[in-house]
Amino acid sequence: MEKKTLLTDCPDAIGLISKITNICYKHQLNIVHNNEFVDHAHNQFFMRTELEGYFNDSTFLDDLDRALPAGSHRRLISSARKRVVILVTKEAHCLGDILVKTFDGTLDIEIAAIVGNYDHLADLTTKFNIPFHHVSHEGLSREEHEQKLLNAINQYTPDYVVLAKYMRILSPNFVAQFPHKIINIHHSFLPAFIGAKPYQQAFERGVKIIGATAHFVTNDLDEGPIITQNVIPVDHNFSATDMSRAGRDVEKSVLSKALGLVIDDRVFVYGNRTVIL
Amino acid sequence: MEKKTLLTDCPDAIGLISKITNICYKHQLNIVHNNEFVDHAHNQFFMRTELEGYFNDSTFLDDLDRALPAGSHRRLISSARKRVVILVTKEAHCLGDILVKTFDGTLDIEIAAIVGNYDHLADLTTKFNIPFHHVSHEGLSREEHEQKLLNAINQYTPDYVVLAKYMRILSPNFVAQFPHKIINIHHSFLPAFIGAKPYQQAFERGVKIIGATAHFVTNDLDEGPIITQNVIPVDHNFSATDMSRAGRDVEKSVLSKALGLVIDDRVFVYGNRTVIL
Amino acid sequence: MEKKTLLTDCPDAIGLISKITNICYKHQLNIVHNNEFVDHAHNQFFMRTELEGYFNDSTFLDDLDRALPAGSHRRLISSARKRVVILVTKEAHCLGDILVKTFDGTLDIEIAAIVGNYDHLADLTTKFNIPFHHVSHEGLSREEHEQKLLNAINQYTPDYVVLAKYMRILSPNFVAQFPHKIINIHHSFLPAFIGAKPYQQAFERGVKIIGATAHFVTNDLDEGPIITQNVIPVDHNFSATDMSRAGRDVEKSVLSKALGLVIDDRVFVYGNRTVIL
Amino acid sequence: MEKKTLLTDCPDAIGLISKITNICYKHQLNIVHNNEFVDHAHNQFFMRTELEGYFNDSTFLDDLDRALPAGSHRRLISSARKRVVILVTKEAHCLGDILVKTFDGTLDIEIAAIVGNYDHLADLTTKFNIPFHHVSHEGLSREEHEQKLLNAINQYTPDYVVLAKYMRILSPNFVAQFPHKIINIHHSFLPAFIGAKPYQQAFERGVKIIGATAHFVTNDLDEGPIITQNVIPVDHNFSATDMSRAGRDVEKSVLSKALGLVIDDRVFVYGNRTVIL
Repeated sequence: MEKKTLLTDCPDAIGLISKITNICYKHQLNIVHNNEFVDHAHNQFFMRTELEGYFNDSTFLDDLDRALPAGSHRRLISSARKRVVILVTKEAHCLGDILVKTFDGTLDIEIAAIVGNYDHLADLTTKFNIPFHHVSHEGLSREEHEQKLLNAINQYTPDYVVLAKYMRILSPNFVAQFPHKIINIHHSFLPAFIGAKPYQQAFERGVKIIGATAHFVTNDLDEGPIITQNVIPVDHNFSATDMSRAGRDVEKSVLSKALGLVIDDRVFVYGNRTVIL
Repeated sequence: MEKKTLLTDCPDAIGLISKITNICYKHQLNIVHNNEFVDHAHNQFFMRTELEGYFNDSTFLDDLDRALPAGSHRRLISSARKRVVILVTKEAHCLGDILVKTFDGTLDIEIAAIVGNYDHLADLTTKFNIPFHHVSHEGLSREEHEQKLLNAINQYTPDYVVLAKYMRILSPNFVAQFPHKIINIHHSFLPAFIGAKPYQQAFERGVKIIGATAHFVTNDLDEGPIITQNVIPVDHNFSATDMSRAGRDVEKSVLSKALGLVIDDRVFVYGNRTVIL
Repeated sequence: MEKKTLLTDCPDAIGLISKITNICYKHQLNIVHNNEFVDHAHNQFFMRTELEGYFNDSTFLDDLDRALPAGSHRRLISSARKRVVILVTKEAHCLGDILVKTFDGTLDIEIAAIVGNYDHLADLTTKFNIPFHHVSHEGLSREEHEQKLLNAINQYTPDYVVLAKYMRILSPNFVAQFPHKIINIHHSFLPAFIGAKPYQQAFERGVKIIGATAHFVTNDLDEGPIITQNVIPVDHNFSATDMSRAGRDVEKSVLSKALGLVIDDRVFVYGNRTVIL
Repeated sequence: MEKKTLLTDCPDAIGLISKITNICYKHQLNIVHNNEFVDHAHNQFFMRTELEGYFNDSTFLDDLDRALPAGSHRRLISSARKRVVILVTKEAHCLGDILVKTFDGTLDIEIAAIVGNYDHLADLTTKFNIPFHHVSHEGLSREEHEQKLLNAINQYTPDYVVLAKYMRILSPNFVAQFPHKIINIHHSFLPAFIGAKPYQQAFERGVKIIGATAHFVTNDLDEGPIITQNVIPVDHNFSATDMSRAGRDVEKSVLSKALGLVIDDRVFVYGNRTVIL
């Protein structure tokens, strides 16, 4: 017996839930969990169905394709563990959190490798017996550096690339290689304080709350579809440095939460937004 | 065209979503929103389906009953506004919040009457042109007082009775008149600090967070199924009185949130817990 | 015996707490609460001292002035209730919250009057026996309308002007009449979504958290010193309208919390930020 | 130049802040930060003063002792790094969080050793080059096991003992060795769900919020003074296992936050409560 997740998104129409679940029933697939959402403003239907049973993928998908309207997307995803490559710069907290969570099974992923533009986190990485690639940006153009990054990453054919406080901007060419496959943690509550030094910006604005945002990377810096956000309160006692330190716990929990949702096949991207079922 | 909400809870079985949605489809009822949940530990299925179309209630429900397993419960609820009677004692904040929210349409309810064992809130109530019944408990046994309360309440045949910081304990006899129809706000984060003076208890325990809990009233004091809870941080600066004052904003928002969920037909009670779809 | 609050902010120097508290001691004034903060980056000292005893204001302040460095500010504030005028437009929730909180004593203020550019909230206001002034903007230039607003407001010589979802932009001339005396609630988590329709902006950005910010009004729209902020989680189920409705509870609690801090003489403004002691 | 923290708690009296700060001034010690609190109900004064300058500890403390009332406690604490021994059982998340935070300098502590009653976390510990002591409880009485624990711990003369999901009950004899020096993380929002299997208890109660509490260990199980608490929302979708998994992020952040406050000399214990300055 297998478990698979069916993700459907398509133009809304009457009877969709009925049709899709009928096909599951016809194939004697038990629905373990089902969540759906209709964006009525755009007439778009989303459904995430956890199935168990004996699958004949091609006949199942053929039946589904015949039942769904034109312009539909559907994916039947096996329960195989997702593989990720993590990009880092100097800060340890997000990487450390993912390493410990993978180590104790909380995050069910395969970390294929860590790639850092500095080697600060080589030691932490190798403690966990994971390959570390130091791919320095120094003396290279962005294109040259990204080519080396891609070489380092692509040998592992990852499902997702995680930017764990990786601090360099990625070009459209790089981003295009991994459409909605690059998860970044930005250390502010987007859309506030995009770009550099968000804690310094937050401090100067005198906000009383700081936050972090996990999102898919697109060509527009810090503008991609948001997956998860969280905040903590701050006050006048917090310098920009204090905000930065306090913010780390938010950054790491938001990033790992987003990663958990993505590897659970819960995140649909529609327009520049996410639907999380 | 009408809108109705179908609530189904029954023993789980393969093909349930399919069967129920098929019947909706057969009756040409469009599913506007659908949420389901399966409690696998107890093999119980819950579904909330917002439908619009032209209803023939009896044939629709007949079809449904034939399709559902033995031991199923289903309700088809019209979109008519719910009627509530609110019980109060002395504190104004929860009542005031509900009054203003009903006044500006945020809460879509009909407040039939307010019943208070003191008359402190008569003035606030009548500002909003709602009948106030002062049903004093003084000099009466609990049974006598409750009989008078019931007389005051039942003339309005309310869908729900809301205890908005109503401070007297209700007997099993009273509770039995309104099974899962009495919503209470308890000024603690249950199950901590049940019973009297929860803020004093919280202060003495030196907690750093206080909260409030909205729940259905059962025979066991503060033990009924929880609908909603929320908390706020406190610290050593807060005396019990300060906690009580700060807690009011939590109490009122939790109570009105719970009331909103209940009147939206989102709350299933199963065992001593709620499933909120 | 009286209670007064001393607010001091001045360039930092060694021995300040000692000097100030010595003077209190010399005048036999008991310190009930004391909080201080030093902004080391700017070398600025802030202290809030709640005192009780028998005051001779002028000799006390003379002693203080001799002890403090040049460029110091100090205020000795009596415990007299603050008077506010509230400006409104159409939405009831913030006004209603302040009305009920004043009614039951939670907010210890005198609401001198409500001024609305529409008359929607006249009814709610007069339920609480407070004067309502309908000062319509229609057919008037901004200057003309503001002159009428000022006429309506100034007859009451308020300590503070509260914008309770008052939706018109105020000119620098108006703002200059009430430096750091106008408290506004903006229905977003600043600095995100400044200006109009923040919930629509929030919806389009696909944020997973919405919030509200209370701040002093300055010449720059939504840019003034932030007093308090809070947030709630949202998800894909929330349309912009749903966000707007859910946001109301945050707006009103943030505004009333900020107002509470201000009338408690806890809020220092320094640069474009607040220090809250 | 040195930095030290002065902690004072004593019966409240007029002029205390003045007297203490005068002595600091007399000794030409600059007050970098100062926070005080008066518990008026118990007439107890607390102050935390960060000082920098050139210290003559004994003359400074003599002056202080002469100025303070009878029954006062005062400590002048150097800025030397605190040493901790961490006790563990099987779960990695709290330990892993502290290890990574110490590794990257976020937590400024010396982890002298980890002691586990199982050896599950030996591997994780030794990755960070910290001694791991496997002190199994099997086949031993509580007294025998605790004696072995004490032998393992005391060789390091730690300032604090951290129970990072250490799951065995400690006897009064053990606790007495480290009065207000043992920090425990309990995986519930105390005082709810004390004792074993709090997530199972939480699940059965149907709470909509779960939490974690860090506290000093006393003789009464889970009853000691609370340092920090935090919560996260849950819903019907969460089984007890899901709650347990989600709760881990709260447990670890609460424990490390509490540890941070303690090593910063911010936590006073008074009665069974903490005052955190």
